[in-house]
Amino acid sequence: MIATPVLFAAAEAGLRLKPPPAPEYDTIDAEAAPVIICGFGRFGQIIGRVLRMSGIRFTALERDPGQVDVLRRFGTKVYFGDPTRPDVLRAAGVEQAKLIVVAMDDPPGVLRTVDMVKRNFPHVAILARARNRWYAHLLMDRDVDGLVRETFYSSLQLARQALLLLGTDAGMAERAVTLFRDHDERNLVETHAIYRDEQQLIQNQQQAADELAGLLEADRR
Amino acid sequence: MIATPVLFAAAEAGLRLKPPPAPEYDTIDAEAAPVIICGFGRFGQIIGRVLRMSGIRFTALERDPGQVDVLRRFGTKVYFGDPTRPDVLRAAGVEQAKLIVVAMDDPPGVLRTVDMVKRNFPHVAILARARNRWYAHLLMDRDVDGLVRETFYSSLQLARQALLLLGTDAGMAERAVTLFRDHDERNLVETHAIYRDEQQLIQNQQQAADELAGLLEADRR
Repeated sequence: MIATPVLFAAAEAGLRLKPPPAPEYDTIDAEAAPVIICGFGRFGQIIGRVLRMSGIRFTALERDPGQVDVLRRFGTKVYFGDPTRPDVLRAAGVEQAKLIVVAMDDPPGVLRTVDMVKRNFPHVAILARARNRWYAHLLMDRDVDGLVRETFYSSLQLARQALLLLGTDAGMAERAVTLFRDHDERNLVETHAIYRDEQQLIQNQQQAADELAGLLEADRR
Repeated sequence: MIATPVLFAAAEAGLRLKPPPAPEYDTIDAEAAPVIICGFGRFGQIIGRVLRMSGIRFTALERDPGQVDVLRRFGTKVYFGDPTRPDVLRAAGVEQAKLIVVAMDDPPGVLRTVDMVKRNFPHVAILARARNRWYAHLLMDRDVDGLVRETFYSSLQLARQALLLLGTDAGMAERAVTLFRDHDERNLVETHAIYRDEQQLIQNQQQAADELAGLLEADRR
């Protein structure tokens, strides 16, 4: 039997108009931990494992049910819940927490979560994952306690490997990467004041490139 | 005038069946450089800037025309071209290159590029960006010369900041992150042999967690 186009259209329209069923988030039964990690994918998990190794308790929230299933098969304790919602954070014990790590793979969701936490739970420190320079600046606008650009340190690591493969000695490669990193992080803070002005950013980029060119030379002397 | 559903359908079918117009890639006029960077977004650019600072020439290829436009407005030299294609790499001077850095934000595209380079240009070393553990193992299957998980080092950096905010002293935080990093990178290599076997991976993860729990303790003694 072949359905008519009208039926297809109706079914599609129905699919579009019907709101998604309200997800049934987990009831969080853990005693309050000093840290809440929002988003427990590849990024949040590493942070959780370093904390666990250091004997620091945390509560992990993840809003992708597929990811929650996989983690549980691997024996990881994680709660299914949407960290952008204040009631979910409250249930996770935010009122007793010292620190929230906002580690979702969803830049606008990260900003929404930071805004919501600042508004509702101003006592708690916030560390956030930034997609790139632009989001790093948006997070600085929000006065978070710390942030990291999500691929910055790994690209530095691959740059170091590239220098080694091309014959640079290990000490020199390390030095180049460290000088670059410090220069670029200073530059990230300096450009916060002008990040919405493309002309000024272009000028700054040219100046930064000139500075970098002389940096290794100056360091060698 | 209202078009009939039939015309809409025909137009849609037409859109689907017609192949996209062949993009006109740039003619690459640079003299051959020792390094080709495939993908010049936030990841590839950092590598390019570290190389430039170190006085090492490279040719950058980017297949997103919007990204190419932005980079050119900022004075960055980058060629519009698809690095998964051997003719594009040949035009970029791969035959004289020593190293290709495969840095696209497209994990299957990264694998295709690595396979194509291994097949066509076996003389050149390859460093690759891996999305996560799974892709890291797929890249190890391909015997690349080096790889990095694209968010791994930044998540370690945010973990270090979390330890500091919670009152761990700087030396101890640094030590915890370094021990974890070395343990996890060894574990990545060890699990390469079993990465398609979920039961073995689950056992390995439990064992790794137990090892990590004792690692800081052993280090303190």
